[in-house]
Amino acid sequence: MYDINVKRVAKVLKKCREYLYWVQNSVFEGEISEVNYKKLKKELDRIINTEEDSVIVYTFRSTRYSKRETMGIKKGGDDNMI
Amino acid sequence: MYDINVKRVAKVLKKCREYLYWVQNSVFEGEISEVNYKKLKKELDRIINTEEDSVIVYTFRSTRYSKRETMGIKKGGDDNMI
Repeated sequence: MYDINVKRVAKVLKKCREYLYWVQNSVFEGEISEVNYKKLKKELDRIINTEEDSVIVYTFRSTRYSKRETMGIKKGGDDNMI
Repeated sequence: MYDINVKRVAKVLKKCREYLYWVQNSVFEGEISEVNYKKLKKELDRIINTEEDSVIVYTFRSTRYSKRETMGIKKGGDDNMI
């Protein structure tokens, strides 16, 4: 998920969509290989301004020890990963 | 994390702050007991409009199988939980 200056957010959204599913305002999910994950981080690093923007990535090696719950409507996401 | 209509977002922000740490735009983190977690969900349920708003909760029973990485600036969070 990210908190990006409006000048750059469309680029970040577009880039994340290449690898993951959009699930909610500034939140993406999905399974991603180590190689693609490194690629995505490198590409995001070129887009964001590290003095202004913030990206947080939670990676789960296994979904057995975590749970995902939603309240309200389901906004996006082709198939939620947990 | 949440994606809430602007009419209700301040109330949701205030409610989440009672239990968790704000870390980024519409994202909270923290350790929470089962009892408090149920309380928070009940209170959020009274605030949000389930036809318009969306809340996603990821719970980790153990942080051993997950990782948290940040890019760019660290926005909030007293002490990140992972």
